[in-house]
Amino acid sequence: MTEAMSRPTLEAVAARAGVSRATVSRVVNGGNGVRSALAERVRRAVEELGYVPNQAARTLVTRRNDAVAVVIAEPETRVFTDPFFARQLRGISKELTAHDNQLVLLLTEGRDDHARVGRYLAGGHVDGALVFSLHLDDPLPGLIQGAGVPTVFGGRPGWGEGARARPPAAVFVDSDNRGGARDAVRHLVDLGRTRIAHITGALDQTSAVDRLDGYRDVMADAGPRLIAEGDFTPLGGERAMRELLDHAPDLDAVFAANDLTASGALRVLREHGRRVPEDVAVIGFDDMSPIAEQTDPPLTTIRQDIEEMGRLMARLLLHRLDRHATGDTVEPPPTSVVLPTTLVRRASA
Amino acid sequence: MTEAMSRPTLEAVAARAGVSRATVSRVVNGGNGVRSALAERVRRAVEELGYVPNQAARTLVTRRNDAVAVVIAEPETRVFTDPFFARQLRGISKELTAHDNQLVLLLTEGRDDHARVGRYLAGGHVDGALVFSLHLDDPLPGLIQGAGVPTVFGGRPGWGEGARARPPAAVFVDSDNRGGARDAVRHLVDLGRTRIAHITGALDQTSAVDRLDGYRDVMADAGPRLIAEGDFTPLGGERAMRELLDHAPDLDAVFAANDLTASGALRVLREHGRRVPEDVAVIGFDDMSPIAEQTDPPLTTIRQDIEEMGRLMARLLLHRLDRHATGDTVEPPPTSVVLPTTLVRRASA
Repeated sequence: MTEAMSRPTLEAVAARAGVSRATVSRVVNGGNGVRSALAERVRRAVEELGYVPNQAARTLVTRRNDAVAVVIAEPETRVFTDPFFARQLRGISKELTAHDNQLVLLLTEGRDDHARVGRYLAGGHVDGALVFSLHLDDPLPGLIQGAGVPTVFGGRPGWGEGARARPPAAVFVDSDNRGGARDAVRHLVDLGRTRIAHITGALDQTSAVDRLDGYRDVMADAGPRLIAEGDFTPLGGERAMRELLDHAPDLDAVFAANDLTASGALRVLREHGRRVPEDVAVIGFDDMSPIAEQTDPPLTTIRQDIEEMGRLMARLLLHRLDRHATGDTVEPPPTSVVLPTTLVRRASA
Repeated sequence: MTEAMSRPTLEAVAARAGVSRATVSRVVNGGNGVRSALAERVRRAVEELGYVPNQAARTLVTRRNDAVAVVIAEPETRVFTDPFFARQLRGISKELTAHDNQLVLLLTEGRDDHARVGRYLAGGHVDGALVFSLHLDDPLPGLIQGAGVPTVFGGRPGWGEGARARPPAAVFVDSDNRGGARDAVRHLVDLGRTRIAHITGALDQTSAVDRLDGYRDVMADAGPRLIAEGDFTPLGGERAMRELLDHAPDLDAVFAANDLTASGALRVLREHGRRVPEDVAVIGFDDMSPIAEQTDPPLTTIRQDIEEMGRLMARLLLHRLDRHATGDTVEPPPTSVVLPTTLVRRASA
């Protein structure tokens, strides 16, 4: 490969066109105040030499990279095994590409690498950031604030004095997790179930806390609370289901915090000879294709439009960046969006 | 979130420390030629204000971002559905993280976006690039050459006057695709099979061409050549298998260009009532976990160490970057690596 040293320089272009470096620089960065005959000569020299302007330098002038970082606050192994992230990225990718912005996915091995991500964000390599799957004690939000890049969050951020506090200006896109959870549990109540358990998600994430709150809302007057902690993975679902069967063998329904958790719970119920839905009704959250259709039996679940969440995050961010670029320095009011969820009935409940 | 304008500037640091902008700049970029008392004052001001140096500017001086781009020349939908890419990224991520370099994955919707990827690479945002899954008519290699970033390729690049031409200095990491394919077909011959078909990969990729060549090497004196074109996907494997059964219903073995292709072929053989391996022996390539173990029957295949390929690519690139950084401007000799493959026997052949 050609190394950096063989790349044609600004000086070479200036020499070829017979103009000053400053003139070349002005033409490359928009051409204001350069006679058209001169500009034309520079453009020809640029073309002949195959000159690529040094964008690090150009960024100092234009302050725009046409690139957006995506940070998923999970290890890369999780990013590539939980289809939730691929789905959200699909929406983001489509939207950014439609606006000719480069999607820059910053992968990490885990939380220890978040300081490095913060440095990259502070480095002027991207115009903004989309950040999702935040955990409560993650240093990322602080690092992002320090980096000073406009950011839109996926899911309501939960930093501060507790899961519900947040800087007033944080813009996020979320689903109605609490409302969706209420719908799920009410559906189980309507089916006549009285011993309804909940397997939570990772409780350092607001989505898991909100779904637990939704379960509690309905169970306040619908029976005892049977809660086991999961972590949004199939393995976590298996572990929690075993725990529940140990402590409450007479349970007749399970609301799992997401479809992956439900898939693990279904496996354990089958192992224990419980029929679904006859003995135990099971309901998930996400409507993650193809998982929800392919479980045995197919999964009743709460649908959220994950791809649309990604698209909306990208759209909100590009909107903020455009306001910046047009010199509108008045901070636009925060415009967080909470999307509705819907119950999808299949065989499991 | 805080917008860029609220970020402390170089000027603010200079004012706080009571020194010139130039002095702050010199301290931030290494501190050469600044009296230690002054430097200390600047450092204190940097800390008090929480100043983050503009890395776009700093990069112009240090020419190092501690960031490496990864470009997979496939649409993002493919990146997230073919486990090959997740595996290679795992190796890359581990190696880059061990050297505190940020993995910057540039996702695209398809080839139309490669010009934008080229611009980002040329923009000084990364120190080097790891590029894989190149296709023959892809503009990326030319764009990368134009961008002038040191690059290591995954798989032998196949641009130029044909699948075997390449710039002499292109550094790549590859598997012994041709040798592995020979082992696969020889294994089928050893089992006494005489009507051995091959389902190719995407023939605009050198890995597919090399595996086809390996098949041809052995079949030169082992029977008729029965070849159908696939594309490394399960669906491509299904389509090609149907074609083969139409044209050569008496075939008794299939060498599929990868495990995903083999999984599609197995489905079609089952549909047609052919028993594997009794009627038709099937062998894949990759040993992709868990696919190869979970097909029905489990898949005999050629193992390549995909994660190790990723790790090696990252290691070779970091090595080149280190030589750059230490001022060693003599181009190191190309050190491409071709990894051996091994036959893994399971029930399908």
